[in-house]
Amino acid sequence: MKLGALGENRLLHQILRHLPRGRTRKVFAGAGDDCAIVEIPGSKKYLVLKTDCVVEGVHFVRGTNASDVGWKAMMRPLSDFAAASGVPHFSLITLIVPQQTKVAWVQGLYRGLRRAANRFEVSIVGGETSNTTGPIAISVTVIGFVEKRRAVSRRGGRSGDDLFVTGWLGGALKQKHLKFVPRIVESRWLTKNFSIHAMMDLSDGLGADLPRLARASKVGFDIELENLPVARGATIDTAISEGEDYELLFAVSPRARNSLERQWRRKFPKLLLTRIGSLNRKSQIANRKLPRGYLHF
Amino acid sequence: MKLGALGENRLLHQILRHLPRGRTRKVFAGAGDDCAIVEIPGSKKYLVLKTDCVVEGVHFVRGTNASDVGWKAMMRPLSDFAAASGVPHFSLITLIVPQQTKVAWVQGLYRGLRRAANRFEVSIVGGETSNTTGPIAISVTVIGFVEKRRAVSRRGGRSGDDLFVTGWLGGALKQKHLKFVPRIVESRWLTKNFSIHAMMDLSDGLGADLPRLARASKVGFDIELENLPVARGATIDTAISEGEDYELLFAVSPRARNSLERQWRRKFPKLLLTRIGSLNRKSQIANRKLPRGYLHF
Repeated sequence: MKLGALGENRLLHQILRHLPRGRTRKVFAGAGDDCAIVEIPGSKKYLVLKTDCVVEGVHFVRGTNASDVGWKAMMRPLSDFAAASGVPHFSLITLIVPQQTKVAWVQGLYRGLRRAANRFEVSIVGGETSNTTGPIAISVTVIGFVEKRRAVSRRGGRSGDDLFVTGWLGGALKQKHLKFVPRIVESRWLTKNFSIHAMMDLSDGLGADLPRLARASKVGFDIELENLPVARGATIDTAISEGEDYELLFAVSPRARNSLERQWRRKFPKLLLTRIGSLNRKSQIANRKLPRGYLHF
Repeated sequence: MKLGALGENRLLHQILRHLPRGRTRKVFAGAGDDCAIVEIPGSKKYLVLKTDCVVEGVHFVRGTNASDVGWKAMMRPLSDFAAASGVPHFSLITLIVPQQTKVAWVQGLYRGLRRAANRFEVSIVGGETSNTTGPIAISVTVIGFVEKRRAVSRRGGRSGDDLFVTGWLGGALKQKHLKFVPRIVESRWLTKNFSIHAMMDLSDGLGADLPRLARASKVGFDIELENLPVARGATIDTAISEGEDYELLFAVSPRARNSLERQWRRKFPKLLLTRIGSLNRKSQIANRKLPRGYLHF
């Protein structure tokens, strides 16, 4: 069987069941979550680890401004840091490029990588380059830390929790997917001031991502479609399915709602925060059978 | 200008001059060294970071056994950990593969990655996959720790130091480059028992790698060609230039020589350790002009 027939999700699922655990004492979040969150011997913080890649023809089209590609390559794993409420510190870059690539293109790429790293005070401490006969690929690894009590994964959502998203959904493929700013500041504020039960960043669209959070938390969900923050020019359909929003989706106790909404408006007056629904007791299996069922599609 | 004309080393040199340092307090070793070695807030150990990649058509030919490819992809960054005397803990894997790749091939690849990780008790804690229209590429990041007094870089070599290499050089392209075991155990023993001034792993061949260590340490070197441990079937020329040996090259005070050689034979009776020359006062500039001059080529 070929990969295309099996699908990436099932492949990952098969592979991830058999990974070695080595000398690791405790893994707070591992393969399958936004970031790996692991214990550091003798430290009060967790280590947060994320790798991601952008490939020409998949994540950007040929001819895209090189600096925009670099920005996106760095900001994608940083958006996963926002999901985990991690503070990024270090980055390593693997650059796979054909020999005929223009030096000016690579310089532009690094300009974008550097600008994105500087935005969040990340040090680029190393990397590798390799030749290829194929499309350009840039793999970025980010390493950082998070206080143990502030680490968040997809797994802590509880039945009854309110579901919130930041910003507007949909329409990101026009521009935003090359220009977005990961919600790290907002995530750090959230975990400082509230008990966030589960969180993730929306990269594949709410319709694909929310069922993942629900499955990881072993709960169901109910979405009030009429409340979705649909971006101008987008429809409910594209807001759910298009992806590349890089907004935060999180679950929090309904008891926190009033205080959260009030304090959020004061702290981030320019960024929308919307309650889009809640988690409920519907079983994991029901969600599997109807992955978008509760979105009423 | 195109990359092919500029050359990878000069490209990296240009790029690395301008990297952001972010919130990093202290970088013991950074871009350009085998591993990045950085301070962890509140920890007595350094964090050790390395990313590397293997690309089809560059690091392995199409049709190579998938498990061997996985082994090599994991062992290459682990060989850099040996150079730094780091203890690897975690790994992240980015897999860039065309849709028409056989699922069995990917399973074989992960078998090799897992076997290699298990050998050094490394946990594979995450990763990403992406589609591509080009050749298969596997990027592996390894994260670990090293005691501050045992961290080694390329930069600490001193004039008068003896230069040693482990094992035999040359002939690695036949078999060894897919089957090698990084010298992590040997490196950890060395830094526990001796003051190792500078160390690196030999991946591009002694003729390319030794000048890098000398330049980083701001010294010159003298090699006694007649003492080189040339592998069976190899010549002095291929032993110097072929690469992929994944042996250790290190600099140590000549006062340690007798004790080192005696204790090494007792501890590692099956692995050759050879003094191949010494570091000297020749200037960095002289080495630049004659990158292989002191190898008498």
